[in-house]
Amino acid sequence: MDNSIQDMDETFEYSEEKIFSLLEEKKYFQCRDELLKFNAVDIAEMLEDVMREYDMQKAVVLFRTLPKDVSVEVFPNMDVDNQVEIINIITDPEIQYILDELDFDDMIDVLEELPANLVDKILEKTPKNERRQINTFLRYKENSAGSLMTPDYIELRKDMTTKEALAHIKEVGMDSETIYTAYVLSGGRKLIGIVSLRSLVIAPDHEKVSELMHEDIILAHVDDDQEEVSDLFKRYGFLALPVVDNEGRLVGIITVDDILDVIEEEMTEDIERMGGVIDSTDKEYLDMPVMDHVKAELPWLLLLMCSYFITGGLIARFEDALSSVVALVVYMPMLMGTGGNSGTQTTTLVVRGMSTGEIEMGDALKVFWKEFRVSIVIGICVSAVNFVRIILLDHNGTLVALTVCVSMLLIVIIAKCFGGLLPMGAKKIGIDPALMSGPMMASLTDMVSLGTYFIMAKYFLNL
Amino acid sequence: MDNSIQDMDETFEYSEEKIFSLLEEKKYFQCRDELLKFNAVDIAEMLEDVMREYDMQKAVVLFRTLPKDVSVEVFPNMDVDNQVEIINIITDPEIQYILDELDFDDMIDVLEELPANLVDKILEKTPKNERRQINTFLRYKENSAGSLMTPDYIELRKDMTTKEALAHIKEVGMDSETIYTAYVLSGGRKLIGIVSLRSLVIAPDHEKVSELMHEDIILAHVDDDQEEVSDLFKRYGFLALPVVDNEGRLVGIITVDDILDVIEEEMTEDIERMGGVIDSTDKEYLDMPVMDHVKAELPWLLLLMCSYFITGGLIARFEDALSSVVALVVYMPMLMGTGGNSGTQTTTLVVRGMSTGEIEMGDALKVFWKEFRVSIVIGICVSAVNFVRIILLDHNGTLVALTVCVSMLLIVIIAKCFGGLLPMGAKKIGIDPALMSGPMMASLTDMVSLGTYFIMAKYFLNL
Repeated sequence: MDNSIQDMDETFEYSEEKIFSLLEEKKYFQCRDELLKFNAVDIAEMLEDVMREYDMQKAVVLFRTLPKDVSVEVFPNMDVDNQVEIINIITDPEIQYILDELDFDDMIDVLEELPANLVDKILEKTPKNERRQINTFLRYKENSAGSLMTPDYIELRKDMTTKEALAHIKEVGMDSETIYTAYVLSGGRKLIGIVSLRSLVIAPDHEKVSELMHEDIILAHVDDDQEEVSDLFKRYGFLALPVVDNEGRLVGIITVDDILDVIEEEMTEDIERMGGVIDSTDKEYLDMPVMDHVKAELPWLLLLMCSYFITGGLIARFEDALSSVVALVVYMPMLMGTGGNSGTQTTTLVVRGMSTGEIEMGDALKVFWKEFRVSIVIGICVSAVNFVRIILLDHNGTLVALTVCVSMLLIVIIAKCFGGLLPMGAKKIGIDPALMSGPMMASLTDMVSLGTYFIMAKYFLNL
Repeated sequence: MDNSIQDMDETFEYSEEKIFSLLEEKKYFQCRDELLKFNAVDIAEMLEDVMREYDMQKAVVLFRTLPKDVSVEVFPNMDVDNQVEIINIITDPEIQYILDELDFDDMIDVLEELPANLVDKILEKTPKNERRQINTFLRYKENSAGSLMTPDYIELRKDMTTKEALAHIKEVGMDSETIYTAYVLSGGRKLIGIVSLRSLVIAPDHEKVSELMHEDIILAHVDDDQEEVSDLFKRYGFLALPVVDNEGRLVGIITVDDILDVIEEEMTEDIERMGGVIDSTDKEYLDMPVMDHVKAELPWLLLLMCSYFITGGLIARFEDALSSVVALVVYMPMLMGTGGNSGTQTTTLVVRGMSTGEIEMGDALKVFWKEFRVSIVIGICVSAVNFVRIILLDHNGTLVALTVCVSMLLIVIIAKCFGGLLPMGAKKIGIDPALMSGPMMASLTDMVSLGTYFIMAKYFLNL
């Protein structure tokens, strides 16, 4: 039991190898015994590793050897893709059993991924009431509050006493997603208050729910975006958040464990876009087919390449001048690269600040003023290093050095000031600011850098 | 009460402006009444906005007008920097009152930021027992499990009945960070089991804690890194995680609300490093002094600039050839830029996969093989577009077109295969893989791209 995080990882990997070799010998029941040493989350991961690296069929056979009470706990911990693979292979009674035992929100996630005819077949066997509810949930938009919530919450009346409320929770608590927050509803299913299990447990027996409940409720609407919802969790440290429909009736709750995934998902999307990977699937890197990679990367790459047609055009117009001072070409990559790098640093910070909500549209002037000052300091330092280098190492003369260094200073200033405003401008016209970072910034800066460089060359070297 | 997320934002901003204009007229008590319409989290944000944009002194005056029960709830919701500012201005009895009411982990966060003499002065007035505990907590490393935990948890004995356990929770629950998970300890303060309030509430009154508790416990050690801790929360969906010392004794617990911040902090660090911003402070963008920006950006920028000395050297060696076919210069930025962009796409995905734990060191070959296939498809598409462009638009002849397109294909292949392995190699030698993305990748690829281009030019054009 005295297992550090590292020890756990080692035990896990040791057992996984053992399972692989036992599977090789088709010793399924020994495999099962090895699996049962672990908890549901670990078993799910091991089965998924078997699926990915070994054999889907064998993984399913192994899954079916698990005791029923274990398999229903393992199933929700797998990726939806893998759940669908399992559903496609196992028998109808097994499907029904697993779906019955799943939390409502996990069940919806699986149903969303199944082919329509299979969903219909499954729904035929569910009671009418539940079927209607499932259909409503299946209609909520992806990434909306509605798609994250579960209808399994605890409902109280405001005239209950603490004792009655606790007795009610004891009775129905088994089936609800969380019992740590309970919801007080009026006649019309409107949410009028929230009460935590903590306050119920701590309060005297005879106290009324209406005295314990909070009435200034923070809630989400079914159509709110999951990013806004996760911001509320981060801001207020909730364990659960109520969700209402357009008529203000409580339709479900979202729990914090689902929000951890949302935070990671949203930040991953940000990171990928900042790195020029657009709309990659939810699949993990190793599971993604080659053509999905191409689809996520190629269009953006081609679009950015077009910006280089302009950059190339600039050079073509300047060709004669360049052929007379070929030494100028030597510094082109450095100017473009350093411009791009310093601009990327700025967009990274600004995009991050915008997505945490710290930087708002009204802050444009502040951002500009800050980047202006930062870029002057950085630009002077970078130019000074280059001046020394060009004079002392390259022996290229003061005029070339001046051309390069003044260009460098201007490029850094333009790249950083522009880099600060670009993501804000993008947001203004409805484009995700994250797209303006990394590759986009690098490509745009290349164009600006060369333009600046050529104008300076014209001025200092009379080309 | 039927307030959507957007309405809330608007109300907030409207009131904030009102407060600013009331402050202008020094109507502090009207300000206070306006503030009191909001919850503690919102009040904290408003006060912080006053601090940042208006006047620290006035913000503190306003803070002191708040009723005591409100101010102790507002205080922990502020940034630690602002908390320290307040502590520096208010009186000793006020400090003592606020610190007494803070959760233990929040208090430690404040004390860590205060100057040593002030901490000593505060500790003089705390009881000896608590002082010893505070000192122990102050010694835990930043970003370790120890620095995140609180000692305020609920402790049960295994021979208690459910009823006794609930009565105990009712008694001590007020002072503990969470009552939703309780910890069963043996004589030597060793953790022998965990029991959720859920199972206690649902179980019959006479059931023993020992029958309800889970014995296969997942826990962290005080020295574990916060990133590993947050991985455990994401993996298992915990509300709280126990933390033990080197002797295996329970010393504290970490709750999920503190983990939301850790996840965001760790991902922000990743994003910033991927964008070439190294070790920026924890301060928000707008609060960061200009010189802190320079410190976070300049060294990395200079280091990367050095790589361009080599790139420049390559060009210098190739100067004569370039002056005979100046047309080649036209395609240099595009080759470098597209190489960098396609490499950045790959590093972004691989760094992300590594930090979620999906890609492990043993997967290097898989990553290489995947990137190899992806890069061939992408390289061919990109080259084909260029071939058409060079022949039909630029009229630069087949040989130049071949030089550019074969270079392009090779550059994309090298950039992506190399981009897949670079972060893994970095990790192997103990460098953060995130540093290998973005600017680093762009700069390295520029060098490789030009080298490849020149070799191809030599081959196709006999230069």
